[in-house]
Amino acid sequence: MNIVDIIIKKKNKQELSYDELSFAFNSYLKKNIPDYQMSALLMAITINGMTMKETINLTDVFIKSGEVYKFNKKVCDKHSTGGIGDTVTFIIAPIVAALKIPMAKMSGRGLGYTGGTIDKLESIPGYKVELSKEEFYNQFNKIGLVISSQTDKLVPLDKVIYSLRDITGTTESLPLIASSIMSKKIAAGATYIVIDIKYGTGAFIKTKEEANEFSEMLNKIANHFKRKIRTIITPMDNPLSSCIGNALEVIEAMEVLKGKKSPLKEVSLEVAAHIISMAKDISVKEAKELCEEVLNKKEAYKMFEKWIITQGGDLSKIKVSDKIITLKSSVSGTISSINALNCGKLAVKLGAGRLTKESQIDYGVGIKLLKREGSKVKKGDVLAELYVNDLDIKLTDEDLKLFTIK
Amino acid sequence: MNIVDIIIKKKNKQELSYDELSFAFNSYLKKNIPDYQMSALLMAITINGMTMKETINLTDVFIKSGEVYKFNKKVCDKHSTGGIGDTVTFIIAPIVAALKIPMAKMSGRGLGYTGGTIDKLESIPGYKVELSKEEFYNQFNKIGLVISSQTDKLVPLDKVIYSLRDITGTTESLPLIASSIMSKKIAAGATYIVIDIKYGTGAFIKTKEEANEFSEMLNKIANHFKRKIRTIITPMDNPLSSCIGNALEVIEAMEVLKGKKSPLKEVSLEVAAHIISMAKDISVKEAKELCEEVLNKKEAYKMFEKWIITQGGDLSKIKVSDKIITLKSSVSGTISSINALNCGKLAVKLGAGRLTKESQIDYGVGIKLLKREGSKVKKGDVLAELYVNDLDIKLTDEDLKLFTIK
Repeated sequence: MNIVDIIIKKKNKQELSYDELSFAFNSYLKKNIPDYQMSALLMAITINGMTMKETINLTDVFIKSGEVYKFNKKVCDKHSTGGIGDTVTFIIAPIVAALKIPMAKMSGRGLGYTGGTIDKLESIPGYKVELSKEEFYNQFNKIGLVISSQTDKLVPLDKVIYSLRDITGTTESLPLIASSIMSKKIAAGATYIVIDIKYGTGAFIKTKEEANEFSEMLNKIANHFKRKIRTIITPMDNPLSSCIGNALEVIEAMEVLKGKKSPLKEVSLEVAAHIISMAKDISVKEAKELCEEVLNKKEAYKMFEKWIITQGGDLSKIKVSDKIITLKSSVSGTISSINALNCGKLAVKLGAGRLTKESQIDYGVGIKLLKREGSKVKKGDVLAELYVNDLDIKLTDEDLKLFTIK
Repeated sequence: MNIVDIIIKKKNKQELSYDELSFAFNSYLKKNIPDYQMSALLMAITINGMTMKETINLTDVFIKSGEVYKFNKKVCDKHSTGGIGDTVTFIIAPIVAALKIPMAKMSGRGLGYTGGTIDKLESIPGYKVELSKEEFYNQFNKIGLVISSQTDKLVPLDKVIYSLRDITGTTESLPLIASSIMSKKIAAGATYIVIDIKYGTGAFIKTKEEANEFSEMLNKIANHFKRKIRTIITPMDNPLSSCIGNALEVIEAMEVLKGKKSPLKEVSLEVAAHIISMAKDISVKEAKELCEEVLNKKEAYKMFEKWIITQGGDLSKIKVSDKIITLKSSVSGTISSINALNCGKLAVKLGAGRLTKESQIDYGVGIKLLKREGSKVKKGDVLAELYVNDLDIKLTDEDLKLFTIK
């Protein structure tokens, strides 16, 4: 087999066989094919697409490139295709685990303006994010809930391919995204999978039609690998939670688990209910009632504490900065929208995220939005609190464009 | 400017500006952009195409990447997009020069199954193919005819881009081919350009429609740069000349110049007439009559000798191997076709060409076809002579499939 022939075949919109995909991608992983040939192939795939058969085959090639996890119980997992202030994992995980539906999940760190679950977990002093396969199984067997960072041994192909896509203009390919997400879920052993598909101008999926197409792809991959899946399609507009920043988000999640009402709770329950509906074979409505029950009885909160403590974390030591700048409204009116992307950008500027892989995160900084979309505000009202590590930080008007007030 | 944004723009079928093309390609030449980003861009161009404006702009970027030649007279040049046994340059050049139309031409070496003018010139002992800019001008000023090998200083971008295209499945792109050919002709100072466009299953241009599209591109580029151009579209089927092999082809060209009738003469006169027609602003028919005249008066042959001698060559020392294997017909019938590609492959196997850049050429070997398409042959008739350097060379039936006899 010859890599140039494979590239030309895809350039000419022909379907690649399993063996051709396996040869191209595995040879790349083994460094027998150089970056410039893989990037040409990735561009041909990005422009000409892949058939469903190719997408399923590539997912299989990805899965088999590394370690595969297996559990003695049916486990659930969830994934969101992007979002700022998306803290749902912290609420869903303890709810489903309290209902005896085990969750074993590997998460990523944030890059750019979207936060990463692992960064948020690291804001809890002591929490062990890096687990060996044995430690991962141990934590899981103890309480039926484990969340760790992605190991390099799980789908190593995804890591190298993603790095190359990121710098060659080939990130926006639904089949490549689908293979990437699903291979990681399947290799990590998930039986029940919920994928929250975000769409909108800021997301890599621009329209609802594209989101539907993507959903169909994920369903077909899951069916092929005999996994149950539900997809939830939601527009990506306002921030999901009122907090953006690592420790701030963990604290907000805890408040929701303790009973606080918030849009974050609604979104989380929607995702949790789909997992429960699949795992217990009941309706989403019934599943939601079960969620409310474990929340009301504080069983979900207790499971949260148990999880964090068993995995080494000390919730009493979470720290939020005590240096606060208030953002006041300069006009009176109604908040017509909150710009999630700008919130993400500001949070990164405050130190809550990383723009390059090398950036250091300040876990205690971030933004607390005090007003929601639709709120009426008067000139001088506090719209948000900025938790900073330096009160003298220079913020421009551009940085502070979070709210549109009409 | 950011290379990833430029790649994404082309991926999304948007037109790149002059500055974007210049930034991407010149940064690559300066090694500020890695191979894997350029190959992604080249694949996006190959699949999504380029507008005429982009193609013209890229040609300009290519031209300006290196030295540009200028002459005090209007000079002509010709190019063929591929062909086996294509010896026309050796006939055209002395004809037009004898008619006081100067030709200044840089040529390439052969790679794969197509021969290169420079290799053929090197079969003439003493002929100097590598000329400095000064030597090139000197030879030109002496007799109005110079043919040298492409210098690294002329369109250096073409060299690096071609090497990358060759190994990334991005050779079949008409705009990239057009920019490559035209930038070299224009940088080398040509005023009158004739391009012989070959099409067919074996060529990179497959159909007549594609050849027409390509011709239109070349015309628009030439017009933009104020050069006169004629394109000749011919199917690539039978070998043009009856000889394949370096010294054999030079000798055949000399025979044509001395008066021998052959299909090679017809094709050569067609190209030469178009050059003369442009340069003297006369009809192609009138131009052909001028060609016949300088051929009959041996002025073209005299010019050939003058050219070779002035540039250092000694025609008396050309050598063809004295070891000959005859290829006889195993059946009786009529020759329905001669397979040009198989002739090329056999010639390479005999040592007349190179499959890798490092291969050494044996100038004295090759094939002399003794029968043409349409000839009636009897079993046992000699179809061709193979000039070899080792009479014990192992040739399979596959190697010898040159003629189809029905």
